[in-house]
Amino acid sequence: MRIEARLRELELTLPAPLPLPEDLTQRPSFAWVRPRGAQVYVSAHGPQRPDGAVAGPFGRVGAEVSGEEAHEAARLTALAMLASLRRALGDLDRVTAWLAVTGMVYAAPGFTQLTHVVNGFSDLIITVYGEEAGLHARTVMGVAALPLSLPVMIAAVVEVGG
Amino acid sequence: MRIEARLRELELTLPAPLPLPEDLTQRPSFAWVRPRGAQVYVSAHGPQRPDGAVAGPFGRVGAEVSGEEAHEAARLTALAMLASLRRALGDLDRVTAWLAVTGMVYAAPGFTQLTHVVNGFSDLIITVYGEEAGLHARTVMGVAALPLSLPVMIAAVVEVGG
Amino acid sequence: MRIEARLRELELTLPAPLPLPEDLTQRPSFAWVRPRGAQVYVSAHGPQRPDGAVAGPFGRVGAEVSGEEAHEAARLTALAMLASLRRALGDLDRVTAWLAVTGMVYAAPGFTQLTHVVNGFSDLIITVYGEEAGLHARTVMGVAALPLSLPVMIAAVVEVGG
Repeated sequence: MRIEARLRELELTLPAPLPLPEDLTQRPSFAWVRPRGAQVYVSAHGPQRPDGAVAGPFGRVGAEVSGEEAHEAARLTALAMLASLRRALGDLDRVTAWLAVTGMVYAAPGFTQLTHVVNGFSDLIITVYGEEAGLHARTVMGVAALPLSLPVMIAAVVEVGG
Repeated sequence: MRIEARLRELELTLPAPLPLPEDLTQRPSFAWVRPRGAQVYVSAHGPQRPDGAVAGPFGRVGAEVSGEEAHEAARLTALAMLASLRRALGDLDRVTAWLAVTGMVYAAPGFTQLTHVVNGFSDLIITVYGEEAGLHARTVMGVAALPLSLPVMIAAVVEVGG
Repeated sequence: MRIEARLRELELTLPAPLPLPEDLTQRPSFAWVRPRGAQVYVSAHGPQRPDGAVAGPFGRVGAEVSGEEAHEAARLTALAMLASLRRALGDLDRVTAWLAVTGMVYAAPGFTQLTHVVNGFSDLIITVYGEEAGLHARTVMGVAALPLSLPVMIAAVVEVGG
């Protein structure tokens, strides 16, 4: 339980699961994590509060949301993804390497600090996993819309052992 | 031929191949499906009519195209992708699991029902393959433009056996 | 060294590495190439000049940048990615197949020739690697913003042997 110790050392707490909407009459159409084979796909996540609820602020980065707020949202997104991986894999040490990260920023016209926003995610992953396991290929883009008008969502592919 | 039987049971028909443009003087620059290794990449597909032609309507979801029309376009996109997989793999039973799906919605400003649109794709895949094989990690985003002004395009990674 | 000979035959020169910004006080938050396992993820790249500097023009395709300029930028992006792969893998012959390519075009409203833009990348890869190894699944989209206001960025997954 090396990663759990590292999270405690960094005083990082992972959020509870995202509450399901009350009117949900059917199962969701996707899985947060698809644990199959050595390369595991992780759905695009957004920022969550410690209780699991979606974290604001909402809107376009560079307009309703500042670059710094979006950077923090990306950091919360990393914690949310770690929480999903722990639930799906049982143990975060099973993630032996981060492979690829795709960061989508809901960008207002003219906002170009996309890289800074997504660094909030990448830097936390590298801090927790170390550079050898945590480093990843990365794609960053500004998008025209995101579910719930989240300022940032991030997807990943990780290598899983054990 | 388990999946073929399931398609017949659901009265689903897969479209013919996309007709090549008449003035095509060279081979296309990409493959609809790249069958190599156990994880097979599938190009972004759009909705097709039964005869293979690109299906309308065209334009931004939330403006020229309604959310319900885009949901149906995503459903047709799933059928188009299944048709490509059948042509590339010979047998849809060779797809042993859906791994990851990326749904791009050509979204008008303020349109946020992106998840509902892409559910048209995901729900059909899960209905055809069942929840164990059909469930997938998913990324949904609103984009600023798509080829042919399609309202939705969807890419995937699938696990292939045999 | 089959690919190196092919590059010489085509009189193609790969650019130097992207210079790091002078005020960089820490390591970058991502890797251009993540060489781990048989499927190797490549970060989104943009066009570079022979000296490694980011190549202009900058801005939206269909407004500040023409479709032809963006097509050429995509071609330069392919050369930049080959340069990164050579640095990461030691030998471009280790890339045994191109699997998936994601092309993001910073598109002005109404610009739809996205496919033509990204063909600048795909056609060069197929010319260099041949159709069997170079062909790839592909996703093309117009995005609302890209780092540095680049007109195009392209990510990939390649199969690596040896």
